[in-house]
Amino acid sequence: MRLGNRNNNQLRHVSIVTGVNKYAEGSCLVSFGDTKVMCNATVEKRVPLFLKGSGKGWVTAEYSMLPRSTDQRVERDVKRGAVNGRASEIQRLIGRSLRSVVDMSKMGGEYQIIVDCDVIQADGGTRTASITGGFVAMILAFNKMVKDRIIRQIPVREYVAAVSAGVVRDELLLDLDYNEDSNCKSDVNFVLSENGGIVEIQGTAEAEPFSEENFMQLFCMAKDGINDLIRIQKAVLKDIF
Amino acid sequence: MRLGNRNNNQLRHVSIVTGVNKYAEGSCLVSFGDTKVMCNATVEKRVPLFLKGSGKGWVTAEYSMLPRSTDQRVERDVKRGAVNGRASEIQRLIGRSLRSVVDMSKMGGEYQIIVDCDVIQADGGTRTASITGGFVAMILAFNKMVKDRIIRQIPVREYVAAVSAGVVRDELLLDLDYNEDSNCKSDVNFVLSENGGIVEIQGTAEAEPFSEENFMQLFCMAKDGINDLIRIQKAVLKDIF
Amino acid sequence: MRLGNRNNNQLRHVSIVTGVNKYAEGSCLVSFGDTKVMCNATVEKRVPLFLKGSGKGWVTAEYSMLPRSTDQRVERDVKRGAVNGRASEIQRLIGRSLRSVVDMSKMGGEYQIIVDCDVIQADGGTRTASITGGFVAMILAFNKMVKDRIIRQIPVREYVAAVSAGVVRDELLLDLDYNEDSNCKSDVNFVLSENGGIVEIQGTAEAEPFSEENFMQLFCMAKDGINDLIRIQKAVLKDIF
Amino acid sequence: MRLGNRNNNQLRHVSIVTGVNKYAEGSCLVSFGDTKVMCNATVEKRVPLFLKGSGKGWVTAEYSMLPRSTDQRVERDVKRGAVNGRASEIQRLIGRSLRSVVDMSKMGGEYQIIVDCDVIQADGGTRTASITGGFVAMILAFNKMVKDRIIRQIPVREYVAAVSAGVVRDELLLDLDYNEDSNCKSDVNFVLSENGGIVEIQGTAEAEPFSEENFMQLFCMAKDGINDLIRIQKAVLKDIF
Amino acid sequence: MRLGNRNNNQLRHVSIVTGVNKYAEGSCLVSFGDTKVMCNATVEKRVPLFLKGSGKGWVTAEYSMLPRSTDQRVERDVKRGAVNGRASEIQRLIGRSLRSVVDMSKMGGEYQIIVDCDVIQADGGTRTASITGGFVAMILAFNKMVKDRIIRQIPVREYVAAVSAGVVRDELLLDLDYNEDSNCKSDVNFVLSENGGIVEIQGTAEAEPFSEENFMQLFCMAKDGINDLIRIQKAVLKDIF
Amino acid sequence: MRLGNRNNNQLRHVSIVTGVNKYAEGSCLVSFGDTKVMCNATVEKRVPLFLKGSGKGWVTAEYSMLPRSTDQRVERDVKRGAVNGRASEIQRLIGRSLRSVVDMSKMGGEYQIIVDCDVIQADGGTRTASITGGFVAMILAFNKMVKDRIIRQIPVREYVAAVSAGVVRDELLLDLDYNEDSNCKSDVNFVLSENGGIVEIQGTAEAEPFSEENFMQLFCMAKDGINDLIRIQKAVLKDIF
Repeated sequence: MRLGNRNNNQLRHVSIVTGVNKYAEGSCLVSFGDTKVMCNATVEKRVPLFLKGSGKGWVTAEYSMLPRSTDQRVERDVKRGAVNGRASEIQRLIGRSLRSVVDMSKMGGEYQIIVDCDVIQADGGTRTASITGGFVAMILAFNKMVKDRIIRQIPVREYVAAVSAGVVRDELLLDLDYNEDSNCKSDVNFVLSENGGIVEIQGTAEAEPFSEENFMQLFCMAKDGINDLIRIQKAVLKDIF
Repeated sequence: MRLGNRNNNQLRHVSIVTGVNKYAEGSCLVSFGDTKVMCNATVEKRVPLFLKGSGKGWVTAEYSMLPRSTDQRVERDVKRGAVNGRASEIQRLIGRSLRSVVDMSKMGGEYQIIVDCDVIQADGGTRTASITGGFVAMILAFNKMVKDRIIRQIPVREYVAAVSAGVVRDELLLDLDYNEDSNCKSDVNFVLSENGGIVEIQGTAEAEPFSEENFMQLFCMAKDGINDLIRIQKAVLKDIF
Repeated sequence: MRLGNRNNNQLRHVSIVTGVNKYAEGSCLVSFGDTKVMCNATVEKRVPLFLKGSGKGWVTAEYSMLPRSTDQRVERDVKRGAVNGRASEIQRLIGRSLRSVVDMSKMGGEYQIIVDCDVIQADGGTRTASITGGFVAMILAFNKMVKDRIIRQIPVREYVAAVSAGVVRDELLLDLDYNEDSNCKSDVNFVLSENGGIVEIQGTAEAEPFSEENFMQLFCMAKDGINDLIRIQKAVLKDIF
Repeated sequence: MRLGNRNNNQLRHVSIVTGVNKYAEGSCLVSFGDTKVMCNATVEKRVPLFLKGSGKGWVTAEYSMLPRSTDQRVERDVKRGAVNGRASEIQRLIGRSLRSVVDMSKMGGEYQIIVDCDVIQADGGTRTASITGGFVAMILAFNKMVKDRIIRQIPVREYVAAVSAGVVRDELLLDLDYNEDSNCKSDVNFVLSENGGIVEIQGTAEAEPFSEENFMQLFCMAKDGINDLIRIQKAVLKDIF
Repeated sequence: MRLGNRNNNQLRHVSIVTGVNKYAEGSCLVSFGDTKVMCNATVEKRVPLFLKGSGKGWVTAEYSMLPRSTDQRVERDVKRGAVNGRASEIQRLIGRSLRSVVDMSKMGGEYQIIVDCDVIQADGGTRTASITGGFVAMILAFNKMVKDRIIRQIPVREYVAAVSAGVVRDELLLDLDYNEDSNCKSDVNFVLSENGGIVEIQGTAEAEPFSEENFMQLFCMAKDGINDLIRIQKAVLKDIF
Repeated sequence: MRLGNRNNNQLRHVSIVTGVNKYAEGSCLVSFGDTKVMCNATVEKRVPLFLKGSGKGWVTAEYSMLPRSTDQRVERDVKRGAVNGRASEIQRLIGRSLRSVVDMSKMGGEYQIIVDCDVIQADGGTRTASITGGFVAMILAFNKMVKDRIIRQIPVREYVAAVSAGVVRDELLLDLDYNEDSNCKSDVNFVLSENGGIVEIQGTAEAEPFSEENFMQLFCMAKDGINDLIRIQKAVLKDIF
């Protein structure tokens, strides 16, 4: 039995609360069960070096965990001297996922949106929560740019959200919590768009290779989960996008 | 007129919400007006090198600001390669302030409490909020140690809290917000104990030296403010300390 | 037309030359066309901290590019002060891929194999070449351990190899070179085992989401490519595994 | 009895020798007893980023201890990878103290004075010696700017100096040496200006809070000590400021 | 008897294979016996800060060892956080040696050649192999600049090469391999030019001072060795320099 | 004419003042003209990892320049994040030079002497001054170990000192100052022992190769200079070594 009597194909309780930071151009606190991520989107009038002079904008992300977001306290990155490999991998994933639905040539020039995803509490699925919440923060930031007359409309083609699915003790489960994730034989993160497009698929066999059949079943389950997540995003953003 | 019609000697609205992190041995979210700091206290069965074999415990703190806790986004420490000077100064202050009221020889042996103060939103007074909230998180962590039968009682002699006071355009003001702080000619942070003892006084002339008379008036004002803060701490901790 | 008249579903010329380093317990130089990676496997009598006392072994990888392995010279990691995000992501992928087919409880105790993948020349597909060649270097290192009587047989369940596939100007292509990769709308890296098991799938939409149908076609193509790669690995390793 | 039969309210032997570096625009070797600090002031034609285009100048400081300035050799900062927290706190204090008496809009444009305080030998009070000697080096550097016709007069409003005072075994002592400092229950550093203005007050309870009464007595003692220090500074600088 | 029956005054088998990298403006793989170094020369249209505006060019080098180039695997520089002292010393030596024969005012303006020397396999003499091979890569890069009509002729005055010589168990040996080097009482690296000029001499007594007489004998031996090396360089470069 | 009417083969005024640091086991301030280096020798009861369990001792050195030891202020190492290449090269040279005359198996067990050479003022020849002064500090530290009955006699075989010589505008000059060094066509640093043994020879052609004849003349000149330096060392150490 899953915690809270969830069905195998059921999301945890998901909530997205916007406007939680008075400075950020867009912000939300996203929860997938006990996983809580603060997503703050910042608009800056500058782009990375490789885009200078291009007239195009950019969207990027940073991801970090508070030291006590986990059961065992972890050292801050700065103490170890570098962003750890896992965090670096996740923040690159978040950035790519958000950029996949943005028309960066319509960002009003060389503007950059940085989405900071800071994990307040981690209980599995921090990267999928970060993408799902990060999308909301990004839309809010674009909306601020519309209000500030930098752009005339939000340059985003469709919604995007993310969810994990995996095989745990021969059961196929959606939206794994930390305990399930730790016992997982194979774990796939799906980032899908509103129209069913694939943005990212990252499937990993934890201990040994898994079958193509399992992969296809997890894919199916994830598509339904993503639809639910996008419904929740839309409820929050309905007045503006 | 101060924001929200505050009197010169009045604190901002202060709240301390405990139990905001399911993993930390002690946690609270402390707000001084729009300044919000997440304080998580962790108990570890190890002490710094210089205490190994001493049989004594230790209390320390780490302080960091989320990138968008401020009006202008700031780079993460890890990107710049080091804790910045200001943060390092503040976390040393928080640690000293908490240790001043703890009997470290009664911590049940070589245990360490690390109080992580992560600024969610900054509007002036983050160090005083961190000390005031950090004290609460520390007491909660000690209480957990009592429940876990590591110690028999909380080894803390008295309450401690902190507040700022300063001279702004010739007015003496308590608990400066960011806007007031920026216009401040002199700024003193007071860390005082319940019995009126001085834990730390850090007075700084921002642009030019200020008079002893002003200093004494700010001190008076701070003593009242600290009393109010300790009353709020006690309301939160009343069942355990 | 693809460079060298390759068919869309055809690998580049792949070669694996073993014994290229006189010190390493296992070594090979793997080429996928102009992409050349030096893979050196080292056996060490120590494991990461989290495995100490477990009696289990470990397999890990490090990935780096020589400064002039690319068209434009890139700075060494040490000058920038950190392994860059991309390299960190790739070396984690290589490590996971190799571990997925190893029985780490049969490594003769707490031994670690480190597979260094140093890119001598990069022309797309450095991560898939690294996994494919890294597997060979790892088997050779295990074989050395057999000869040294640390273990009685190579504790590897099956072969593993990797290949990329992607959609370039509406064509589905296998094993993208750098030029193709740069023009790619969606790019999937497949790491599959000899028995058709999925080890890793990392699919990324470069500019916009891509369809599930495309994904399935790329998957098919990759399965054939992996079979070819494993045939080449087997030719090289036939006497020992 | 204090070392060398000092009275409780008596400074150690203080000396300031100028012109000890042939390159620096201003330099002195300041001694408070066995504490010796080399202060070198450098004039540079550039200011920090935040002042560019402002037309204003800047004064800043760096503080470091030679590895064997202390009884136990300490590692160099560069080996540990960062300025330690204590040094960072002290150099910020020195910088603020010097700036408090300088009119930075009269520095002849965007010039910066960097005062390097390198501790040759440490026996307590290195920060107060650094401020006291750093002031002298700064004045000498301004004098060089006058001679070089960058400015017409030294843009400094008044003298500033610093001294510590503390409670050691219930005695109130001025200008603590290392041994006294180690046994100190409470320790206050006073930075005061010639006209009695407060520049910085940093009071710290080492083990437990101390009383307001003690604080006021230390303040009194410090005022006399500062007067003596300024007299010594004036003897050295008499011909130019 | 030396390995491979070498005479005391005989070089190991030396080979220089050019064109081993398709991107670099000049490249070669140089071998001194089992010591193998990849030398890649890059032409960049920029110079170090101190040469900006001078109209002059620059030649510099970077040196690094692959982790398993040695019998015991060594950590990558980036993991330790810095180029190690030895590598830094060697790359400075390579740079100086190459610059000694280049007329940097005739490099067609502010161009920089960076010679990357990456040790693939180390068996003693990596620095002398790097200089000898680096010279060839540099000439090839200059030749590319001639072809690209940036310069009209290669601005190099004469050939330069390097070899080690040392006293091992009272025998005077040329071109020490790792085993000989480890047993060496004194070790001198000679960098000499075609016309017999001294570019660098670095003699080190490993355990105790050695005599001037020995030094002179090693010098003689080295001159012959250098002549042989330059003959090999000329065979490779004969068509262009 | 050289500064101060020095003859070509004449040292600058050299002085060695001992006992300049009350904590160090051995200390001196060495001056070669305006070049001033503080040498502090520390005795520690530990050796580097590679010597643990060997029963042998070790001698090592660290070298650093104060920011304003030079005409143009230089950044501290810690700000740039690493010991710079030049400093690293020099400190390795100092360490090797001192070790060449020490019998490390007679250091009373696993003791380490660290000689810190901090350049107070630099005017050419800082490395040769550091070796010459560092030798004195080391002997004093060994003498302290004798007094502390750790060893029975100073385990040093002979004196060692260092001097530079070079060709400046076709003149052969001993002990170059900064101005001469900057105009130098070739520059050799000689580290020689009392008995005429070669410890280190580092000859560098600054702009173009130089002749063997010049090298031999510089060598002669240096031998006389070293004799003078050793005479000065002996005057200082006469009572103990």
